[in-house]
Amino acid sequence: MYNYIGIDLGGTNIKAGLVDEAGNILKRASRPTLREREYSKILNDIEAIAREVSEGADGEIKGLGIGVPGACNNRDGVIVYTANIKMKNVPVREFFRERLSYPVYVENDANCAALGEYSMLPEKPRDLIFITLGTGIGSGLILDGRLYTGFNGIAGEAGHIIIMPDGIKCGCGRQGCWEAYGSVTALIRQTKEYAMAHPESKLREACGKDFELLSGRTAFTLARQGDMGGKAVVDKWISYVAAGITDMVNLLQPSVVLIGGAISNEGDFLLKPVIENVERDRYKSDVPQTEIKIARWGNDAGLIGAAFLGK
Amino acid sequence: MYNYIGIDLGGTNIKAGLVDEAGNILKRASRPTLREREYSKILNDIEAIAREVSEGADGEIKGLGIGVPGACNNRDGVIVYTANIKMKNVPVREFFRERLSYPVYVENDANCAALGEYSMLPEKPRDLIFITLGTGIGSGLILDGRLYTGFNGIAGEAGHIIIMPDGIKCGCGRQGCWEAYGSVTALIRQTKEYAMAHPESKLREACGKDFELLSGRTAFTLARQGDMGGKAVVDKWISYVAAGITDMVNLLQPSVVLIGGAISNEGDFLLKPVIENVERDRYKSDVPQTEIKIARWGNDAGLIGAAFLGK
Repeated sequence: MYNYIGIDLGGTNIKAGLVDEAGNILKRASRPTLREREYSKILNDIEAIAREVSEGADGEIKGLGIGVPGACNNRDGVIVYTANIKMKNVPVREFFRERLSYPVYVENDANCAALGEYSMLPEKPRDLIFITLGTGIGSGLILDGRLYTGFNGIAGEAGHIIIMPDGIKCGCGRQGCWEAYGSVTALIRQTKEYAMAHPESKLREACGKDFELLSGRTAFTLARQGDMGGKAVVDKWISYVAAGITDMVNLLQPSVVLIGGAISNEGDFLLKPVIENVERDRYKSDVPQTEIKIARWGNDAGLIGAAFLGK
Repeated sequence: MYNYIGIDLGGTNIKAGLVDEAGNILKRASRPTLREREYSKILNDIEAIAREVSEGADGEIKGLGIGVPGACNNRDGVIVYTANIKMKNVPVREFFRERLSYPVYVENDANCAALGEYSMLPEKPRDLIFITLGTGIGSGLILDGRLYTGFNGIAGEAGHIIIMPDGIKCGCGRQGCWEAYGSVTALIRQTKEYAMAHPESKLREACGKDFELLSGRTAFTLARQGDMGGKAVVDKWISYVAAGITDMVNLLQPSVVLIGGAISNEGDFLLKPVIENVERDRYKSDVPQTEIKIARWGNDAGLIGAAFLGK
């Protein structure tokens, strides 16, 4: 029986998990990322927690995979670029070659999560698109049963398809990217805008005097209570989320789209209107249609997927 | 040596070609589609021209592929839907089972063209996205060296990704689809709008008194002569074309994007600004970038690709 090590390299913490063939996380460890550090110190800590979780492991370790919040070239084992951690063209596989007895893989964290969710499905669909709604919008594509990363390794940047030409400036430099409208960051901005435009509204009150209570949940909580302001904000935001999903459905016709990120805890309250929007707008044809569902494995998906890069 | 039969089922004509292993079209035949007819009559004519081109063929015929202007399910050999020809859920493979001694394939015409262009490249890229700018925008995806059609067979409808929310109504029912802005039909509309808004302009004159001279070439011809109106129309239209390409590059990072359709005869005058737009807007990362080129094989790409469905 083989085991695999998954690393989730985040802006705040580095998490490690020892994962068995079935995707069970047998042992966990974590360290703070301290992201201002030189990259070699971060890689040293990855090695340390990898050793920590593999101590006393039953089976042989078959590989270590690192999920990275940025662009990777997994063919060469290089972290190309991360926005939040100081890494640019870091030859991670090379770094660990003499230090670890098993191969090392690097992959974008949303791609890892896509692979994790896919691997844990009892019946594998042909294709799966995973999107994660958070600070930005991440995505990972499983096409024809395999992780699709493009010829250069950085495909799946669904957050940077344009849904609003000449729209709000995105962190990537372009205007009107999907993540500038459909991320949780955008939802919070949209909630605040509504609250400021309607100073007497319940939504304004729920944000707190200095907006100290404002979060991605604020509008959802009020919408669930039937508040019109909350509902207006949520409806609009969901229409943005659905716009990007519809584009991907029209282009790629995947078997399944999974929605992840903490906001997906809103469950059917998020999912049902997303499905209604996509159903209304998708390219119609008399063939089976893409299923849209909430992702199941939360943060563990990234860990499992990273581990399974070596599977 | 094997031969293959390719059929290009168009709204006006049905064309057949006998194609050898290398993609040479050895013999051609065609009949009018007469698209108002019952589908069985059209299929009878396909059989007739297939026999015509295969007469006296040197090698064994290995298969017949039909490129269809609509949605196909090639797994079952069914034409699901075409907008311009009366076909809905037509079991084409079944129809020919007793009549022809070789297998029959059906596939969307833009997918066939993508496969044709790909097959004729001396060095195969990993991925290729083919787009054809015409009445609408068609596209075909070769991902990881294989034609990608989605789990339901109808993927690659790039013309129906949204580039302008709440924009112009598209034939598909949605608003702001790429093809409502970046097709040649859209270019003609945009040329006419400019001409009507500027009645004293050269562009207005070039359209003819009753717009009888207006075509997709009108603005390009004037732009080449340095006319500001022509240039304004062409620049705007190219920005729309580039917007959709940028979305696909960000999402799929293909090795190559090929631009086809008659308008691609504009060559570098079209290509260079498209590349500049995409280069400005694409998601930046320090990795090799997608090449954008003009497609090479024109109408023959669809015929060759259809033939090679059986390869």
